[in-house]
Amino acid sequence: MSVADPARAVCPAPSVETGRVLLGHGSGGRLSAELLRDVILPAFGTAGDVPQDAAAFAVDGARLALSTDAFVVDPLFFPGGDIGALAVHGTVNDLAMMGAAPVALALAYVIEEGFPVEDLRRISASAGAAAAAAGTRIVTGDTKVVGRGAADGLFVTTTGVGRRLSGAAVSAAAARPGDVVLLSGPIGVHGTAIIGAREGFGFAAELASDTRPLHRLAAAMVAAAGPALHAMRDPTRGGLASALNEIAAASRAGIEIDEAALPVPAPVADACDLLGLDPLHVAGEGCLVAVAAAEAADDLLNAMRRTPEGEGAVVLGRVVGEHPGRVVMHTLVGGRRIVDMLLGEQLPRIC
Amino acid sequence: MSVADPARAVCPAPSVETGRVLLGHGSGGRLSAELLRDVILPAFGTAGDVPQDAAAFAVDGARLALSTDAFVVDPLFFPGGDIGALAVHGTVNDLAMMGAAPVALALAYVIEEGFPVEDLRRISASAGAAAAAAGTRIVTGDTKVVGRGAADGLFVTTTGVGRRLSGAAVSAAAARPGDVVLLSGPIGVHGTAIIGAREGFGFAAELASDTRPLHRLAAAMVAAAGPALHAMRDPTRGGLASALNEIAAASRAGIEIDEAALPVPAPVADACDLLGLDPLHVAGEGCLVAVAAAEAADDLLNAMRRTPEGEGAVVLGRVVGEHPGRVVMHTLVGGRRIVDMLLGEQLPRIC
Repeated sequence: MSVADPARAVCPAPSVETGRVLLGHGSGGRLSAELLRDVILPAFGTAGDVPQDAAAFAVDGARLALSTDAFVVDPLFFPGGDIGALAVHGTVNDLAMMGAAPVALALAYVIEEGFPVEDLRRISASAGAAAAAAGTRIVTGDTKVVGRGAADGLFVTTTGVGRRLSGAAVSAAAARPGDVVLLSGPIGVHGTAIIGAREGFGFAAELASDTRPLHRLAAAMVAAAGPALHAMRDPTRGGLASALNEIAAASRAGIEIDEAALPVPAPVADACDLLGLDPLHVAGEGCLVAVAAAEAADDLLNAMRRTPEGEGAVVLGRVVGEHPGRVVMHTLVGGRRIVDMLLGEQLPRIC
Repeated sequence: MSVADPARAVCPAPSVETGRVLLGHGSGGRLSAELLRDVILPAFGTAGDVPQDAAAFAVDGARLALSTDAFVVDPLFFPGGDIGALAVHGTVNDLAMMGAAPVALALAYVIEEGFPVEDLRRISASAGAAAAAAGTRIVTGDTKVVGRGAADGLFVTTTGVGRRLSGAAVSAAAARPGDVVLLSGPIGVHGTAIIGAREGFGFAAELASDTRPLHRLAAAMVAAAGPALHAMRDPTRGGLASALNEIAAASRAGIEIDEAALPVPAPVADACDLLGLDPLHVAGEGCLVAVAAAEAADDLLNAMRRTPEGEGAVVLGRVVGEHPGRVVMHTLVGGRRIVDMLLGEQLPRIC
């Protein structure tokens, strides 16, 4: 499908009520949240839980985290990475956002009959290397093959077990008025790079995915701020807007951000202009947003900037007592606008 | 595709060398083992590991197991179950085969656009109920949606973290000459039920999948035999033949089984006759095969028979010093035949 198809981008209130799963239900935006809240979580018997990137639990005193992600990115190979590295980074990062270091990974393939064995080898090698670079290992896996036409090439599901770092007490529900909001680096890079590679747009040459593991950055932040670090989130599907809205909703607090502080690289801004996208809704795979107590902000920012992944870290805004559950941006021209989650899908299959 | 397509069932030596992934690479038979050994494990950096249903590791003294499985069963709803329950049972059982009790599950969906929301709700409810019945919970998940034609309805990947039971020391590599081979119940039920449901064969009415959790049975066996219980395996894809061959190969020992002891229900035998299948190659989802020291056999068998899942348990055969890596069956008519793994695929998408 075309990215610019306006019927999909703005179709009137698609919802669970249509009785069909829509592309938008996989967007990471409002439709995703609705499907989760209304259909999946009640059926699993986990309704009412705060949605997190990973779940926390304990076994015999060991403080663990568990996260799973299905990857359906198209194309499988793109500037800056491939589905294998992306799948490992995505899971390592979801664990990192819970303050957990990866301990063991599981990886499952669904492969379409006829898929090139050499591509499978490259993707597997990339996943293995990404795991090693993140200090962990793929310890178990599964491979299923379906007939031609029953899948599009290859899908990967990665699951990670993490060990929660001592001192880490992060939760999307823990933001408090007076906290600061920090961002580790540029937004929107991965999503625009994928669209550029898929559609062959001219801007593709300037853009490579920022996919990378964030566990070192997250560990440095936990070490620097301890319990003053309240929440972390990596803005993937749904972009920074979804990440901030999830924190605001779970914490029942307002968030205000400053457009002047927002790091949008020029090629990302150009691509978004061309495609009619808001960079706040475009996925990255190499940055994180954090909420911390104001008194810890300077130490935290310094710790972030000492890591390669966080050298571009900025103070993006603050948590406020007003407009609980809402994110508001102070614009460059001195106005204010609500930063909402995207309703449905603008960039299908970017991860 | 048709099950009976002879070009697929017996195509001459399809292998990684063709350069394309074949349906047979997902069979759980020899092609699967070859793909794993030659392509995936070296790329992951885990070549040389004994392939197990689950991986064992430890975190802060907690003895854990991790297992992942992708499910692509067609149809999604079948007599005796659906993909949701099957996905949970499959993962619970893979953990159980490592002597581990399930602690937390993760579940990821890849959904084709247009999939009925009501079916998603039913499948999710079934997965949630299966998790609860197995004493665990789906604690995290993911949902991706791909466009029409890019997947066939819905795929599920489940991953489980287990706590290894104290006293459990099972490994596919631990079978020793003199050990006995035990089987908990009938073979081939799930696979024939799925084919019957998919193809609308007459025998379908008599067959329902045996999908169920085996963690209670496995725990009873660990309690009864402790370290005398050497190996456990649930014969899913590739059937009992693959499970026994994997144990024989990993343990570098021979296995002999008695056809007279083999529990093949009449409807399974009839279906296999009709379709030209060997019941030894057909998946079950509700039985397990175990290898244990001979002196523990009676206690173990009694413990198995006291559980609902193991009430039909039998002594199937023994581990021998001869023909290491090979499985031999003493037939009803007094002959001997080698029980080999299936080369490729005879029953695609049964799990």
